[in-house]
Amino acid sequence: MVKKPRLLPPKSNFPEWFDQVMFLAEIADFTYPLKGCGVWLPFGWELRNNIFNVMRRLLKETGHGEVYFPLLIPEGIFMKEAHFIKGFENEVYWVTHGGLKELDVKLALRPTSETPMYHMFSKWIRSHADLPLKVWQLVNMFRYETKATRPMFRLREVTSFKEAHTVHATEEEALKQVEQAVEIYKRFFDQLCIPYIISKRPPYDRFPGAKESIAFETILPDGRTLQIGTVHYLGQTFSKAFNIKFLDRDGVEKYAYQTCYGVSERVVGSIIALHGDDHGLVLPPNIAPIQVVIVPITFKEVPGVEEYSKEVYEKLKNHFRVELDLREKRPGEKYYHWEVRGVPVRVEIGPEEMRSKTATLVRRDTFERIKTDLDDVVGKIEELFNDIKSNMENRITSWFESMVKKAETFLSLSGEAKDAVYHLIDENGEFKGGVVEVPICGDVECEMKISKFVDILGEPWERVGEVKGMCICGKPARKIVRVSKQY
Amino acid sequence: MVKKPRLLPPKSNFPEWFDQVMFLAEIADFTYPLKGCGVWLPFGWELRNNIFNVMRRLLKETGHGEVYFPLLIPEGIFMKEAHFIKGFENEVYWVTHGGLKELDVKLALRPTSETPMYHMFSKWIRSHADLPLKVWQLVNMFRYETKATRPMFRLREVTSFKEAHTVHATEEEALKQVEQAVEIYKRFFDQLCIPYIISKRPPYDRFPGAKESIAFETILPDGRTLQIGTVHYLGQTFSKAFNIKFLDRDGVEKYAYQTCYGVSERVVGSIIALHGDDHGLVLPPNIAPIQVVIVPITFKEVPGVEEYSKEVYEKLKNHFRVELDLREKRPGEKYYHWEVRGVPVRVEIGPEEMRSKTATLVRRDTFERIKTDLDDVVGKIEELFNDIKSNMENRITSWFESMVKKAETFLSLSGEAKDAVYHLIDENGEFKGGVVEVPICGDVECEMKISKFVDILGEPWERVGEVKGMCICGKPARKIVRVSKQY
Repeated sequence: MVKKPRLLPPKSNFPEWFDQVMFLAEIADFTYPLKGCGVWLPFGWELRNNIFNVMRRLLKETGHGEVYFPLLIPEGIFMKEAHFIKGFENEVYWVTHGGLKELDVKLALRPTSETPMYHMFSKWIRSHADLPLKVWQLVNMFRYETKATRPMFRLREVTSFKEAHTVHATEEEALKQVEQAVEIYKRFFDQLCIPYIISKRPPYDRFPGAKESIAFETILPDGRTLQIGTVHYLGQTFSKAFNIKFLDRDGVEKYAYQTCYGVSERVVGSIIALHGDDHGLVLPPNIAPIQVVIVPITFKEVPGVEEYSKEVYEKLKNHFRVELDLREKRPGEKYYHWEVRGVPVRVEIGPEEMRSKTATLVRRDTFERIKTDLDDVVGKIEELFNDIKSNMENRITSWFESMVKKAETFLSLSGEAKDAVYHLIDENGEFKGGVVEVPICGDVECEMKISKFVDILGEPWERVGEVKGMCICGKPARKIVRVSKQY
Repeated sequence: MVKKPRLLPPKSNFPEWFDQVMFLAEIADFTYPLKGCGVWLPFGWELRNNIFNVMRRLLKETGHGEVYFPLLIPEGIFMKEAHFIKGFENEVYWVTHGGLKELDVKLALRPTSETPMYHMFSKWIRSHADLPLKVWQLVNMFRYETKATRPMFRLREVTSFKEAHTVHATEEEALKQVEQAVEIYKRFFDQLCIPYIISKRPPYDRFPGAKESIAFETILPDGRTLQIGTVHYLGQTFSKAFNIKFLDRDGVEKYAYQTCYGVSERVVGSIIALHGDDHGLVLPPNIAPIQVVIVPITFKEVPGVEEYSKEVYEKLKNHFRVELDLREKRPGEKYYHWEVRGVPVRVEIGPEEMRSKTATLVRRDTFERIKTDLDDVVGKIEELFNDIKSNMENRITSWFESMVKKAETFLSLSGEAKDAVYHLIDENGEFKGGVVEVPICGDVECEMKISKFVDILGEPWERVGEVKGMCICGKPARKIVRVSKQY
């Protein structure tokens, strides 16, 4: 009896499915009595750490130093850049009391660390020899969300905010850094099997103070897009506000150019949401907290199975994150326990395997069973890991590609904006899911009209060919924008 | 010319020495414009991570699950246990505003996580099968310190608070856990070459709500003791306040027994303070961010040294955290750079080493030079690491032991308390440094008298032999207490 995994959770019950998997796989507990704040449980936290260790390696390879900046930001420093204040004034938590005393200076909980970092950068940077400066940190951060919060996706305490900040001598170098950041994120999401599109946000939707904002979006099973990473070119906005100047080779003091880029635990949520099935989590082997579980199938009449399982464990333990499950439970219960947690390969060891010095491997992604000799078991599992990773990539990519459509025009035959976005919205005005690339003329007015029905993600980051088709206003289109519904 | 390291910073200039090493080795920057908050720099943060990864392994081996609990604690939960409120009411930061709005419920920044954790434990624990529960986290925490703050040692944002919390069915099991916690900390500090004494705190100096508090103390170069770890037996204080009950095997619902134990970045500060010398940091090889640095000594007339250095690098790179320093600087500058950062072994490669296919190794702890064949270099460095660790342990232990003295009586000949503590305080009333173990009768009154002059650390945790000598009151002594000056 081979189980049949259903590829993706149907969008109709995605939210319930997600909450149930979070609970059953012991990822996190969001019954903490504060909206938008949750408790990470050991299995979930290990998954989170494995994921961010992928990022840690990528950032180390590309010359980023890991730092830690204070959580608390004095009001005077927080209030130095006008766009920034405006962007965050409704979202910042303020500490006003220490003990029973009112503080002289209010302290903001970091909603992101531009202000404390750039204050310090202005002390650290004196000359061109101090540039480029590239640092990052993995920290908790806070937003007083007024929208409905969602575990992993919209939080008041974001526990896993990875923010990188760089400073450069020239605009050219800073723009190159933007490209490197995009490359790093591509490699990151590729290693996690998360499909994405990359869009340049429209000017009215940029990060406060940014000259350019680039966003990575994935699509969740209910068809909505989720922003999973952003890269911002800041130009000299902050270097002027925070006085980040350097003495250049030509003896002239100049303001520096800056970039910043971030991701959060939304990546953890995305992996869960995109790859999970009716049996629970399905995890890419490289980040699975437990990669292999050995389940002995013992019978009173046949001694030695447990001993043989230990022999198998000894063979595997230096190669994989492996668990030998010797609990006093029926095999079926154990299968269920580890399937929910997405363990990529289960090793079943019964009397038959013991007798023939073999092992039966079961893939979590397809439930396919493979018999192997004990001598080949390490190599066979490594091979399976590669197959599992490719299979996960292929099936999610083909689904993802089917969710991103192109339209020849934003206008339908009837000429009304309402059914123009026919790929996304059905005749009853319901969102159908996915992303559509539509041609527009480029006038903000037209985008505003469109944004009454759908969210505008922005232009594709990658170069697009010749633009064809007609804008909503009837003029020939000059560019492409992506539209969808965002989380 | 062999350099001669001075073993320990003289206590007269310890604070300046410490601040200078923090600056030169790029550990942290405490010029952040908020008292008691600092910025960890990349080298310091890597050191910090290596140190806490030692703890992570120890806690994993002993069955502790790593979790993450929210920073923000709603006032109602924070205020559930009376001793706890009293202990922390003067030290807690309160968030009162979200954006421009006043919050309905004030939120505390965690000063420690008993209250949020135990609130959740009461939901998680239903039966004896859920016990023991053993979790820990590494988080930032906040205390509104009114005393003078000190980098690493007394902070308002403690960035690296490792707190473990356990729940048990019986008092006996909880007390066994206390012993395991003490064992874990011993192994932790041993691996870091930090010497310590373990004392039972007197009842008036316990953690708020605890039945017993056990503290690890080291001694800093200025002779003051620094609390570097605590283990608390909580009994049922919190289980009753937070309603942590379980259905026992006998069908009766019972309150659980609890423990908690913590350390912080004081361990990082201690390693720096205790092992550093006039040339900067000296780090145990197991936690050094860079374990080996290769410095080529090149001459225009002798080509090939850089290539040979790369060959050496290739030999070492899979065994150690190794850096090949190819910067355009003089070797002397490079030596200085890496000595300040405490790199345990420097590999010097010049024309002579190239010719003879050898390498010259220089130990950071003694500056001893050792020549080795290229073929033996990996084994030789491993050997040196062991020697360096033992040497660091031996020299710090002998110093530490010389700082802990025993007294036969607390009374001097003159009978005045002032000079009774002659080991600690000189004739001018100045603190001389170290710890003294003195006999006392056990009455709180006598302890209070003593505490006017020195701080009472408590009784030794280890069993002591027969107690001899006289108390300050003239009665025969019944126990031993340790006294000192604390940070």
